[in-house]
Amino acid sequence: MPETDFAATLTVAASRVQARLDAALADGADVPVVQAMRYAVSGGKRLRGFLVLEGAAIFGVAPAAAVSAAAAVEALHAYSLVHDDLPCMDDDDLRRGQPTVHVKWDEATAVLAGDALQTLAFELLCDPALGTADTRMVLVRGLAVASGAKGMVLGQALDIAAESAATPLTLNQITALQAGKTGALITWSACAGAVVAGADPEPLKRYGDCLGLAFQIWDDVLDVTGDVAKTGKAVGKDADAGKATFVSLLGLDAAKARARSLVDEAERHLAPYGAKGQTLIDAARFVIARDN
Amino acid sequence: MPETDFAATLTVAASRVQARLDAALADGADVPVVQAMRYAVSGGKRLRGFLVLEGAAIFGVAPAAAVSAAAAVEALHAYSLVHDDLPCMDDDDLRRGQPTVHVKWDEATAVLAGDALQTLAFELLCDPALGTADTRMVLVRGLAVASGAKGMVLGQALDIAAESAATPLTLNQITALQAGKTGALITWSACAGAVVAGADPEPLKRYGDCLGLAFQIWDDVLDVTGDVAKTGKAVGKDADAGKATFVSLLGLDAAKARARSLVDEAERHLAPYGAKGQTLIDAARFVIARDN
Repeated sequence: MPETDFAATLTVAASRVQARLDAALADGADVPVVQAMRYAVSGGKRLRGFLVLEGAAIFGVAPAAAVSAAAAVEALHAYSLVHDDLPCMDDDDLRRGQPTVHVKWDEATAVLAGDALQTLAFELLCDPALGTADTRMVLVRGLAVASGAKGMVLGQALDIAAESAATPLTLNQITALQAGKTGALITWSACAGAVVAGADPEPLKRYGDCLGLAFQIWDDVLDVTGDVAKTGKAVGKDADAGKATFVSLLGLDAAKARARSLVDEAERHLAPYGAKGQTLIDAARFVIARDN
Repeated sequence: MPETDFAATLTVAASRVQARLDAALADGADVPVVQAMRYAVSGGKRLRGFLVLEGAAIFGVAPAAAVSAAAAVEALHAYSLVHDDLPCMDDDDLRRGQPTVHVKWDEATAVLAGDALQTLAFELLCDPALGTADTRMVLVRGLAVASGAKGMVLGQALDIAAESAATPLTLNQITALQAGKTGALITWSACAGAVVAGADPEPLKRYGDCLGLAFQIWDDVLDVTGDVAKTGKAVGKDADAGKATFVSLLGLDAAKARARSLVDEAERHLAPYGAKGQTLIDAARFVIARDN
């Protein structure tokens, strides 16, 4: 599929996810916390929501039947960004080229908006359109495990600890950190469509694990080679902070090669789905071609 | 039931809830975020968890079958306290007589520990011991609605907005604020046992609504009449801040009378359960007898 077609598919998915989030946040438009939640879920690539919808499409599940799971993971991801940007965390003023929530409102609103976005994620997974209660419980439990103290939050905590550590992280440590911080949610997203379809999610789990690591390696590459105008966030922060990254540990060329090798592996895991897996293959290639 | 018997029942329930939370947080004891989570869920009256277990007992549901829901609401409540105590929110150094999480660790750890406690709440509701997937979905959806941007977080946001408002809140406004901030979780707790039992939760919902409001009025009473050594937190803060409270709006005696009247009404809603409702009646009376 040419790159422009993939970009169009990504845009269509993003629109579907945005519409579901807009509907979920339609009430309370006069409440600053709700305004901040709507702001926080606007824009971005929506890669996680896209993975949910395209994973579902492999099994013939219509977008309407999977979109609440796609919106859920985007709400969860948005909460993590809002809290990660706080002054006591990464202290970022810019996100997707716009002022971060605590800059545009205040810290209290950012804490509460993030909190309520997490809650919203679990509420969205209650949507009966996603399937039986058993199916939805698998999604709820999976998202909780992926995002909690053994998943995403653990990764964030390790990341913060690394900043004040006496010695930089090793490659194994940074791989474990990223598996939690970004990998677990990406893998959940890749699997969710199969769960909704009642199919075996194992091949998509392996695809997601490779994709998540490739994604993070490429983020480190962009932190070195990127352009603030394109990434929409500060670049060079990790290098300036003396933090270990895949680039600092492997070197730029080897980091790129590793990301490409992971994308090749991700592609192989999709072989069982034949042509139906093509959009997810394109997604994996997109991850290491993107400049933001 | 004499007061000492009720206190003993409350203590037994608290132990059961603590054991469930300890089991859920048994791993990761070397991770500061997990240590902070364990700290945050230690101590306290466990009124919400108690309501879950005693609501379940009315219908003959054993504690082991309901305890994950009791632990879930205590984890959710603990997250809200950790975030509420942050410098950008209420800025409290003391909670249950101990340093708050951001004082004992740091702000980043407090943000992350609160985040992961919310996640843990939803993970606990996935416990198959609570019943069928349909039953658990009712619990998940109810907890999400009670704690999100239309429930607890909305109440917290209104509370913060009230601090900088030009005019103090009216009685209707403060009642709505508290229905979100503390009422929604208490009502969920009162209903959860009936949900686990597959019974109609409506009488317990009405009981919970009365109890929650009585609880908050009594908190305002204690803010005026309380003793920091007993409440384990700063007192007189609301009055000092010029915030409207039930006491400032009604006067101390009328506020106490209103709380007592609500407890009487709560008791009437339990009439259908006869003697089986006695412990929850004692709980309502306890709420307006407590000094912490």
